[in-house]
Amino acid sequence: MAVWGERLAGVRGVLLDISGVLVDSCAGGGVPIPGSVEAVARLKQSQLKVRFCTNETQKSLGKLVGLLQQLGFDISEKEVTSPGPAACQILKERGLRPHLLIHDEIRSEFDKIDTSNPNCVVIADAGDYFSYKNMNKAFQVLMELENPVLISLGKGRYYKATSGLMLDVGAYVKALEYACGVEAEVVGKPSPEFFQNALQVMGVEAHQAQR
Amino acid sequence: MAVWGERLAGVRGVLLDISGVLVDSCAGGGVPIPGSVEAVARLKQSQLKVRFCTNETQKSLGKLVGLLQQLGFDISEKEVTSPGPAACQILKERGLRPHLLIHDEIRSEFDKIDTSNPNCVVIADAGDYFSYKNMNKAFQVLMELENPVLISLGKGRYYKATSGLMLDVGAYVKALEYACGVEAEVVGKPSPEFFQNALQVMGVEAHQAQR
Repeated sequence: MAVWGERLAGVRGVLLDISGVLVDSCAGGGVPIPGSVEAVARLKQSQLKVRFCTNETQKSLGKLVGLLQQLGFDISEKEVTSPGPAACQILKERGLRPHLLIHDEIRSEFDKIDTSNPNCVVIADAGDYFSYKNMNKAFQVLMELENPVLISLGKGRYYKATSGLMLDVGAYVKALEYACGVEAEVVGKPSPEFFQNALQVMGVEAHQAQR
Repeated sequence: MAVWGERLAGVRGVLLDISGVLVDSCAGGGVPIPGSVEAVARLKQSQLKVRFCTNETQKSLGKLVGLLQQLGFDISEKEVTSPGPAACQILKERGLRPHLLIHDEIRSEFDKIDTSNPNCVVIADAGDYFSYKNMNKAFQVLMELENPVLISLGKGRYYKATSGLMLDVGAYVKALEYACGVEAEVVGKPSPEFFQNALQVMGVEAHQAQR
């Protein structure tokens, strides 16, 4: 504990990942990693500011938070930074109209985005929606663009589910990067802007945060 | 023609690709590229040795040759070098038992290969068989191996079909390479061994060949 005391000196806020840190995914949703429910509760009782920072894109924010609450976590939607809203902001700022290669569960997060006549592709952890047909469509959209833009919500290699390791979005990003000769722009972890945004909402400087 | 005369000086054999050179793929099979049927006929009437060298792995060798014959090409199975048989030879030599991520059409080419308790993955242009489930299974097999071996039949980025550009096996190889931290061994073009094997069958040295 002495070591932790030293590490936490000057720390005002904590960013917590969700999948693989608080819960392991499973077909029904997720199971808490032992001790995580209590750890979140203790952090919230302390003077530290707490925020959750996730690349989860197979569940809508509402569904994710609802699931975590059912599992006993003290968490609300407004405490979570996730890549969908961050991507929407970038799309609006740059006048980008995406072709969406995403899981149906998070499609509603892009409801207010113009997807007609696409001039970019947004890729997220689409799971079973990563069919050959869907991948090929995204590939064709990129190949038809003069300046192809590929925006990736995360770039994880894989994640752990209770049924075993599962391929994550990063693998499929690499596939499109290779086929199209492009480099994806990552929204979500490990993008510095993503963490910066989470810290800004907390009102905490980077040197005052622990993750 | 003078330029061709110079280029062909000392040339004794010609290696011909099939997809994108002789035919464009389409849902029904393929359509000849204008002039290609006649070009093959003229080459065969010349004193040059002719061999076909393809990375086609969505059709069995028999079906591919049958299709080309229907389209008017002068071609037989024994004139074709394709990656399936080359891969089988490598698997036998090294005692490898593959998990096969391939199109059902070429599964019979691996009939004599032991696929129990896999200690490697063989990936080919599986087309619609590149589902998330099938990709994830291949990924899991590789992740469970102490020394993961990934053998790829070709590494093309994409190919041209009459319906448009189509993602090729190379994209999916990159996905598995990234997720598993491995590098694939390529059987088929552009592997030098593959061309060397085709030349050996023709009895032609590399400097005597044109492709």
